[in-house]
Amino acid sequence: MIDGVKRTVRVDLGERSYDILIGRSILSGLGEAFKTLFPSSEAVIITDSNVAGLHLDTAEASLREVGVDPYVIVMEPGEKSKSYKGLMKAADAVLDSKLERGDIVIALGGGVIGDLAGFVAGIVRRGMRFIQVPTTLLSQVDSSVGGKTGINTSHGKNLIGLFNQPHLVLADTAVLDTLTPRDFKAGYAEVAKYGLINDPDFFEWLERHWQGIFDGGPEREEAIARSCQAKADVVAADEKEADQRALLNLGHTFGHALEGMAEYDAERIVHGEGVAIGMVLAHEFSSRLGLCDAAVTDRVVAHLQAVGLPTHIRDIPGQLPKVDLLMDYIAQDKKVSRGNLNFILTRGLGQSFVEKGVEPAAVRAFLEEKLG
Amino acid sequence: MIDGVKRTVRVDLGERSYDILIGRSILSGLGEAFKTLFPSSEAVIITDSNVAGLHLDTAEASLREVGVDPYVIVMEPGEKSKSYKGLMKAADAVLDSKLERGDIVIALGGGVIGDLAGFVAGIVRRGMRFIQVPTTLLSQVDSSVGGKTGINTSHGKNLIGLFNQPHLVLADTAVLDTLTPRDFKAGYAEVAKYGLINDPDFFEWLERHWQGIFDGGPEREEAIARSCQAKADVVAADEKEADQRALLNLGHTFGHALEGMAEYDAERIVHGEGVAIGMVLAHEFSSRLGLCDAAVTDRVVAHLQAVGLPTHIRDIPGQLPKVDLLMDYIAQDKKVSRGNLNFILTRGLGQSFVEKGVEPAAVRAFLEEKLG
Ligand SMILES: NC(=O)c1ccc[n+]([C@@H]2O[C@H](COP(=O)([O-])OP(=O)(O)OC[C@H]3O[C@@H](n4cnc5c(N)ncnc54)[C@H](O)[C@@H]3O)[C@@H](O)[C@H]2O)c1
Ligand SMILES: NC(=O)c1ccc[n+]([C@@H]2O[C@H](COP(=O)([O-])OP(=O)(O)OC[C@H]3O[C@@H](n4cnc5c(N)ncnc54)[C@H](O)[C@@H]3O)[C@@H](O)[C@H]2O)c1
Ligand SMILES: [Zn+2]
Ligand SMILES: [Zn+2]
Repeated sequence: MIDGVKRTVRVDLGERSYDILIGRSILSGLGEAFKTLFPSSEAVIITDSNVAGLHLDTAEASLREVGVDPYVIVMEPGEKSKSYKGLMKAADAVLDSKLERGDIVIALGGGVIGDLAGFVAGIVRRGMRFIQVPTTLLSQVDSSVGGKTGINTSHGKNLIGLFNQPHLVLADTAVLDTLTPRDFKAGYAEVAKYGLINDPDFFEWLERHWQGIFDGGPEREEAIARSCQAKADVVAADEKEADQRALLNLGHTFGHALEGMAEYDAERIVHGEGVAIGMVLAHEFSSRLGLCDAAVTDRVVAHLQAVGLPTHIRDIPGQLPKVDLLMDYIAQDKKVSRGNLNFILTRGLGQSFVEKGVEPAAVRAFLEEKLG
Repeated sequence: MIDGVKRTVRVDLGERSYDILIGRSILSGLGEAFKTLFPSSEAVIITDSNVAGLHLDTAEASLREVGVDPYVIVMEPGEKSKSYKGLMKAADAVLDSKLERGDIVIALGGGVIGDLAGFVAGIVRRGMRFIQVPTTLLSQVDSSVGGKTGINTSHGKNLIGLFNQPHLVLADTAVLDTLTPRDFKAGYAEVAKYGLINDPDFFEWLERHWQGIFDGGPEREEAIARSCQAKADVVAADEKEADQRALLNLGHTFGHALEGMAEYDAERIVHGEGVAIGMVLAHEFSSRLGLCDAAVTDRVVAHLQAVGLPTHIRDIPGQLPKVDLLMDYIAQDKKVSRGNLNFILTRGLGQSFVEKGVEPAAVRAFLEEKLG
C-alpha cells in the first residue's frame, strides 16, 4: 500500500483483522494509507510531547498531503498519562475536536499513548476506529498487536480498559533511532521474550544478531516482524485472554509487581526492565521448582546483560522492595483465580507453559531467598 | 427459570443474546437466576441510595439464599452519578471488592445505574459480565434493551461509553410501585414512543389502557413486554446504531437539547419529560414541513397530557431556553453527519422515519417560532 514497507504481518481476527506494516521511514506514508482505508474521514492524532517534538511534523505533513488536517492532542510523556486524569483529558479533547463517530483516532507514540488512545477511541461516542503508529520498540513488537488497551488505577496496572483492535498498525523502524538507549533496550526485552516463550531458534538468532537490531540494520525489521507474527499467532488463536495468550505474560507477573512497588517511577524502572528481571525470576523460580536447568537461566541472564538490560531485583536503583509488598501486587495481578496464582514457568529454553496451581507460599519463599 | 415470570423477551444477538424476564415481585428470584447462569461466580451490586433503601434487602437476601454474598456499591441518586467522577468511584469500588474478571456486576436501579454499571462492567479488568435489574419504568422498557452504556461529559449526554450487552435482564414490575408519580410518568413517555415510532395499534391500546399500567394491573407487564419486544426487534436487526435503530431516538434530539440547556437539573426536567416534549416537537416540526397532519399532533399531545406529562417547552419550570443554546446542543448531538442534522420525523400516527438532510436553519426557524 505504501512505499518502503518491507514486511506485512496480518493479524487474523475475522471481521476485526488488520495489517501491521513494517519498514524504515514509512511514517511519511501515513496519509496515503489513511486515505486508502478511510477515504472520507477526518483524523485526530493523540501523541506525547516527546514524540510530538520528533515525529509529529512528518505525520501531519503526510496527512495534509492527502487533504486531511488532523486535530492534535499532546499528552505528557510517561506512564502517568495512562490514568483516569489522562483519560479525561484525552477523551474531552477528542470531543472538543468536533470529530464524528466515523472519524479516526491515530495513536502516535509508545505503549502509553497506544494503550490510552486505543481505550479513548473505544469509548468516545461508544467507539471510533483507530490506527496505531507505535514509535517505541516495545510498542511495535507488543502493544500494537492484540488489542489490549486501557489505563492504570491505584489498584494496579491496566485494570481499566478494553479489548479494542486497531484498523491498521504502521511501524516505522527509523523512528526508533531517536529512542533513548534505555527505552530501546527495554523494548528489546519483549523481543527476547518471544524467543523464551516457545522459539529457541529465534532466541539463538537474537544472540547472534542483536547488534544489527540496535544499529538499525535489516535485522531490525526482521526481529520486529518475527515478534509481531509470534504475538499475532497467539492472539488469532485466542483473542480473549486464555491459556495460550497467557504465555505472553512470561516475566510479567513479577515485572508488574516490581513496577508497582516502584510506583511506576520511570527513574527506577520501566516496563521492559521489569519484564527482563521478571523473565529471569521466572526462570530462576522454575529452576527452584526443579523444572528448568540452571544453565538455561544463566544463558538468559548472559544475553540480557549483553544488551545492557537489568536482570536482578538488585539492579533497580533505590531501596530493595519488601516481599510483602511484592506479594500484594502479585495477588492483585489479573492472572489469579481463586487464591491460587497463575504463573508462566519454563521447562527449558523456549519451553514456557502456564502453571495454574502455584501456591503463594512458594513464591514468597523464593522471593525471600532472593531478597534475603 | 424463576417463579412469577409472566413474560420473557429474547434479545437476539447471536453469541450475545439474552433474556428479559418480566413479572411482579420476581426480584426475590434474583439469586436463583444468578446461580443458574453463573454457578460459581461472586457478585457486586451497584445501586443508588434511593433504591438501596427500598429494594436492596430483597436483592441481597435472594442472593444469600443461594450462597452468594454480594459486595454492594451505593451511588448517589441522579444523573450526576453518570459522570467521570461516578465512573471512577464505581470502578474503584469494584476493584476494591477484590472480585475477579469472571465475577458478575449487578446493576440494581434506574437508567442512571444501568448505564453506569454496564459501562463499568465493560471496562473493569477489560470486561466483566453483568445483569441488569432495572427498577424504573424507563429503564425496564428502554435502557435494559440494546446494550448502550456510558456516562455524560460537559460536552453532552452519553458521549463516553460502550455497546455492552448484559447477560440477563430481570424486570420486577412491582418495584415500580415505589417510584414517584413523576418518574413513572417519565418512563411512560418511552412506552408511548414505541407506539409513535411504528405501531399505531399499540398507541391506541395505550390510550385505552394507560390507567391499568399506572395502577399495576396486568396491563403493566403487557406494556413492558411489548415495549421491550419492540426495542429488541430493532436492536436485533441492527445492533450498532444505523437507520432502524435511529428511530428509537424519536423525540430525543430535541429532548437531549432541553435536558442540556437545563444542565440536567432534575428539578426542571428529567429524561422522559424531555422525550415527551421532544416527541411533540418532532410531530409539530413534521407538520410544519407539511409531512404530518396537525390532528395527529393534537392526538399525541392529548394522550401525553392525559397521563400528566409535559408537552411544551413552556411546561419546563424556569427561564425559557435561548434558541442559540438549543441549536448548539442539537448540533453536538451524536445524530449529526457533516453539517446536516439527522432527525426522526413522522408522516402520521406511528409512521416515523429518519430524515438525514434537515437543514439547521429550518430547525432554528421552527424553534424561534415556538419560543417567540
Ligand atoms: N497493550 C498491550 O498489549 C501492551 C503490551 C505491552 C506494554 N504495554 C504498555 O506499554 C507501556 C510502555 O510502553 P513504552 O515503553 O512504549 O512507553 P512510553 O509510551 O512511555 O514510551 C517511552 C518513552 O519514550 C518516548 N518516546 C516514544 N517514542 C519515541 C521516539 N520514537 N523517540 C524518542 N522518544 C520516544 C516517550 O515519550 C516516553 O518518554 C506500558 O504502559 C505498558 O503497560 C501495553
Ligand atoms: N442505555 C440506554 O439505552 C438508555 C435509554 C434510555 C435512557 N437512558 C438513560 O437512563 C437515565 C434515566 O433513567 P431513569 O429515569 O431510570 O433515571 P434514574 O436511574 O436516575 O432513576 C430516577 C429516580 O428514581 C429513583 N428510583 C429508581 N428506582 C426506584 C424505585 N423502584 N422506587 C423508587 N425510586 C426509584 C432513582 O434513585 C432516581 O432518583 C438517563 O441517564 C438516560 O440517559 C439510557
Ligand atoms: Zn510487556
Ligand atoms: Zn430515552
